[in-house]
Amino acid sequence: MLHAVVKCSKRLYSRLPEKTSTLAKFNFPSATNTIEEVSNKIDSYLNNRSAKITLHGHIHRKSRLRAALSFGFIRDKQGDVLQFVSDVGSGDQSVLETMKKLSVEDSVAITGHAKRKETVGKEKEDAWELVAEEIQILNASNLDASRLEKLKQASPEDIPPQFRYLQLRTPFYQNALRTRSKLAQLVRKVLVENHDFVEIETPLLFKSTPEGAREFLVPTRAFDSFYALPQSPQQYKQILMSSGFTRYFQMAKCFRDEDLRADRQPEFTQIDLEMSFINSADQVMKVVEDVVLNLWKHTSKSGTYHVNSKGNLQPIHNLGENNNDSLQFQKLRYEEALQKYGIDKPDLRSNISFTSLSDFFVAKENPSFPVVEACVLKNAFEPEPEGSKKKKYKIPKSLIDPINYNRRRPYVWAVGKEQGEKNGNSNWWYQTLLEKNIITAKENINESELNQLLNLEPGDIIAVSTRAELPYENPTPLGKFRQLAIKEFPRKWLRPIENHEQQLVTDYDPESVTVGSWVVDFPLFNPVETSSHLDSPYPNYDFDKFESTHHPFTMCRSKDYDLLETDPLAVKGEHYDLVMNGVEVGGGSRRIHDPALQKFVFEEILRIQNHQQLFGHLVKALSMGCPPHAGLALGFDRLCAMIVGSSSIRDVIAFPKNQSGKDLVVDSPTSVDEQTLNDYHVTKF
Amino acid sequence: MLHAVVKCSKRLYSRLPEKTSTLAKFNFPSATNTIEEVSNKIDSYLNNRSAKITLHGHIHRKSRLRAALSFGFIRDKQGDVLQFVSDVGSGDQSVLETMKKLSVEDSVAITGHAKRKETVGKEKEDAWELVAEEIQILNASNLDASRLEKLKQASPEDIPPQFRYLQLRTPFYQNALRTRSKLAQLVRKVLVENHDFVEIETPLLFKSTPEGAREFLVPTRAFDSFYALPQSPQQYKQILMSSGFTRYFQMAKCFRDEDLRADRQPEFTQIDLEMSFINSADQVMKVVEDVVLNLWKHTSKSGTYHVNSKGNLQPIHNLGENNNDSLQFQKLRYEEALQKYGIDKPDLRSNISFTSLSDFFVAKENPSFPVVEACVLKNAFEPEPEGSKKKKYKIPKSLIDPINYNRRRPYVWAVGKEQGEKNGNSNWWYQTLLEKNIITAKENINESELNQLLNLEPGDIIAVSTRAELPYENPTPLGKFRQLAIKEFPRKWLRPIENHEQQLVTDYDPESVTVGSWVVDFPLFNPVETSSHLDSPYPNYDFDKFESTHHPFTMCRSKDYDLLETDPLAVKGEHYDLVMNGVEVGGGSRRIHDPALQKFVFEEILRIQNHQQLFGHLVKALSMGCPPHAGLALGFDRLCAMIVGSSSIRDVIAFPKNQSGKDLVVDSPTSVDEQTLNDYHVTKF
Repeated sequence: MLHAVVKCSKRLYSRLPEKTSTLAKFNFPSATNTIEEVSNKIDSYLNNRSAKITLHGHIHRKSRLRAALSFGFIRDKQGDVLQFVSDVGSGDQSVLETMKKLSVEDSVAITGHAKRKETVGKEKEDAWELVAEEIQILNASNLDASRLEKLKQASPEDIPPQFRYLQLRTPFYQNALRTRSKLAQLVRKVLVENHDFVEIETPLLFKSTPEGAREFLVPTRAFDSFYALPQSPQQYKQILMSSGFTRYFQMAKCFRDEDLRADRQPEFTQIDLEMSFINSADQVMKVVEDVVLNLWKHTSKSGTYHVNSKGNLQPIHNLGENNNDSLQFQKLRYEEALQKYGIDKPDLRSNISFTSLSDFFVAKENPSFPVVEACVLKNAFEPEPEGSKKKKYKIPKSLIDPINYNRRRPYVWAVGKEQGEKNGNSNWWYQTLLEKNIITAKENINESELNQLLNLEPGDIIAVSTRAELPYENPTPLGKFRQLAIKEFPRKWLRPIENHEQQLVTDYDPESVTVGSWVVDFPLFNPVETSSHLDSPYPNYDFDKFESTHHPFTMCRSKDYDLLETDPLAVKGEHYDLVMNGVEVGGGSRRIHDPALQKFVFEEILRIQNHQQLFGHLVKALSMGCPPHAGLALGFDRLCAMIVGSSSIRDVIAFPKNQSGKDLVVDSPTSVDEQTLNDYHVTKF
Repeated sequence: MLHAVVKCSKRLYSRLPEKTSTLAKFNFPSATNTIEEVSNKIDSYLNNRSAKITLHGHIHRKSRLRAALSFGFIRDKQGDVLQFVSDVGSGDQSVLETMKKLSVEDSVAITGHAKRKETVGKEKEDAWELVAEEIQILNASNLDASRLEKLKQASPEDIPPQFRYLQLRTPFYQNALRTRSKLAQLVRKVLVENHDFVEIETPLLFKSTPEGAREFLVPTRAFDSFYALPQSPQQYKQILMSSGFTRYFQMAKCFRDEDLRADRQPEFTQIDLEMSFINSADQVMKVVEDVVLNLWKHTSKSGTYHVNSKGNLQPIHNLGENNNDSLQFQKLRYEEALQKYGIDKPDLRSNISFTSLSDFFVAKENPSFPVVEACVLKNAFEPEPEGSKKKKYKIPKSLIDPINYNRRRPYVWAVGKEQGEKNGNSNWWYQTLLEKNIITAKENINESELNQLLNLEPGDIIAVSTRAELPYENPTPLGKFRQLAIKEFPRKWLRPIENHEQQLVTDYDPESVTVGSWVVDFPLFNPVETSSHLDSPYPNYDFDKFESTHHPFTMCRSKDYDLLETDPLAVKGEHYDLVMNGVEVGGGSRRIHDPALQKFVFEEILRIQNHQQLFGHLVKALSMGCPPHAGLALGFDRLCAMIVGSSSIRDVIAFPKNQSGKDLVVDSPTSVDEQTLNDYHVTKF
């Protein structure tokens, strides 16, 4: 009910829209078919004037009006476009009159009969058009729509965001959201039917429990009393494990009031699940693999692969539903990932990896970052033609542009013919580093060993950088370099696919390959970083203050238990991330269900002074015989974007916010008057 | 990552919980079976010591410890309870030692073998118990759980709300939430598979567009810039209709900051759907019937019925999936509902209806409420025994208690033998009303006609009240009386069920019958009420100010179009409510998709001065050729509660808020510090 009414003694009703044309927008014939349905049975329609067809849809392109014959184009709900023509023979001018009024994106109901289309060369023989006997305009589009026609046809992604609804009418976006719906049904089907999960909704009006990201607050009508929108259902789902549900899931709405750099949204959806009486993380991973592999199998054109023991890609054939097979995806330890690929979410379609130069050099610039390592991109360039006068190979700008790096860049060289010839003397590249005191050489470097290790040849690119032994910097400079190299050279240095005949295929379309892997053995805690991203080339840490690498509810590995007391930074957590093609699509962990241990982590390691106020409810729920449990959350928006082949989650969200957090379709957020705010005991300032 | 850490130079690690017992909570044998699985194949387990069984679960009741043999009780995830015993023969004391430590609601893993249970008379022959060889405590419950044991067994509904997790472990609540999950899957299956709907998520960070209920606001970090949580996805779903989606649905989270009287929650879930290119409301109703009838068919013990043309109940057999059959549920006009039953959501299992006395009387007290009507409850009481000296029948207090009525009560009499004998002279009941000037008699009342009409006999109850010709008061006093009578006499005056042989059955359990009907032809607008509920027996209206009966986007009936100009209060809307057993489970309408007509309603009828700011985005989306559309929303919480047989939606919500809007499990809402509020440009006062 709407209360916003204004007293007025006299009413002026002069503006009621004209009756006949208005009611004609509501009363119209039902659709008999879609275009596809008629096409599939075209023989029974062709030249059969009594087989009436009514189509509903939008005017797709401008009509072509000619004295003899006029053409229009209707697009139906399936996105099919059909030509319709005025019936010149009938002598009825009303269709032609209506066609003159049509503009692009009007919604219409058109009734008529099918006629074979005069074939213009390449068209199919059974191509047909609709002879329109009646056209009813169900709603007109205004000028803007017409002006936007060109954009719509040519580059729908450039339609201004306030016209999102017009953008959503185009094929790419129709497919993106319809696929998202299909994926949501699949997720639930796999979890419910294959694995007996129960879908449970948890509150969105939650409590402020500051954990990392800033939370949206929701004032109530009581003084100093606020809800907060949840960053995830983490605590409620753990409480559900204490509530007798052994397998919970939810497509959960989550909220983070972060700056919306990169491809983030203030509200997003995650596939959230938790299982109790779990004694191994693999039990959760198997369920998640079943979900993810089913999604790809049923909706993606890309095949799924894992990295086998030989380091090659192998296609995944069986979905391993509900069985006790081992995991489908390989496990990659955090340290190994950082050492080989410089990041905890490596794109494993690429075979680019790093070579440690620790036998030869020690980094000198910052004692906390002693490791020197190199990344060689073999044959990045075609060989220079003999006798070419071209200058040496030019390093692509993207690989060295400072804006692509958070902090320091690696040192990068292209190996030209000149350098190649200096093969016997490899110091051409590291000499500068030595001179600038960035690295020092160990005693008695064996140059030929170094040369053999790197095997630099003309056309290669070499990048060198430094890192900590156990890097908290993630990605490392070289890890970032690797990502940029993959983007710059998408078809090069691909990890071989091992096919049935054990042949190795290296020339494939990376878009057609999805590699999954589990990243495990993360440090449970890391030292608090004291530097901001911009103020120093190297990050600084306070090694006496710890924070949870993921969240404070994660259990440690059993074998590291004693280290909780003696060396928390050495403790590895029972956390696992699912990484696909370099994207972290989800993460989870075994949780601490022992209330005493959970308190120890809060008090002794993280030193959260108000942990009772923030997390007391959780500890209380644990202490009521809550069974052991573990879970995971998958970023549903990201999964959808990957599957529809988009790089942005905005493409799979009906009404995304822009980078300023605005929804330009409805023009939110907005000002709110003081009177309303009074009810909530807050005031603007 | 958790940043709330405190610098401290020296760490005290003295409190790390003891290693062995703590790690034992994480490392334990996997469950081999559920209790049910073993029971189903008990022959292969009985007296087979090598067939090891490991069960996971909670200790269900206190163990009984005896020197000879000790008993314990484990409840597994399916809620089955099994007795386990210590293995006296083994000589191993560790099981007994562990049993001594067990308390109720501990979570445990127990390994052992099955043994035939010594039959104690009535028990089944294949009853078995588990001879425990090893018991591992996976988490202990604290004292509270033990104290709560009695409550848990006897009256789980009385477990204090802060221990919701313990309550949720009991069978009723386990079933309630598992059924809700099943219902959610069914809803989606019917909509997606039978009707080709696309599930689309719309934003929860929406815009403040005041419509009736108060909205929760969400401050942003920009000055005077707020999101609002949506009361429903109404506007976004209409914009989706302008986005090329012809069939949208969503299990939508909605928010209303209302006072939580009755059975309301600040956040709730609705099954929200919308369809485009709709030329008849029946198209939406058919889809909704298919959803609802499938829910009942697959999960409810109650059968579904409609009221047939003879006014009897008839079971619904066919679900009418995707066909062109007529509607399953009858349509009831708003005026008819108000006249017959005094409410727009009548419980049609009851046959109680009203008799107009307009031929005999006119109400006098308030000229706007001229209609006099009666409700007779036949044989409310057993006949008084002959020669009984008991006083006349006593009217049940609930029917006349003022707190059960919003405003005035009806006048209620029990018909005793005395009154029955006065049959020739019926004025015994209306004489007082005449004397008190509440009603006046028309000229020349035909008393015998009146007597015949009402046919009052000893044991009846008669209630008389007044109403407006077209009541905006809903329920009317007599409508409320009818509801109270149904509650007071649940098995009386039931509407007959017409069975296969066309026999009429009136003696049935009303819980086993669910009657659905559509209520249609609501007034599109109503006058704004100027009285508060308490200050007058009659509501007062300003007939010069209109508000939407449902919402301002609802279309009028075509035949009432002209009345928009001349007499808005006479216009009926194309709104339809689904009512089941007296509960409004959902409502929907055909929408105004014509932007000019929508503006007319905003400006000329509702006189919303800032409609451009509030709804301009919607009108703009309509004006881009948005097709005709209609939709509906079903209250999912209410549907779930009805199906699990609960009167409160709290029973089907995992973590409901209490009547003060508090979640006592996590103790929200909470205070927020000024520093955090600063970021949001608000301050408390």
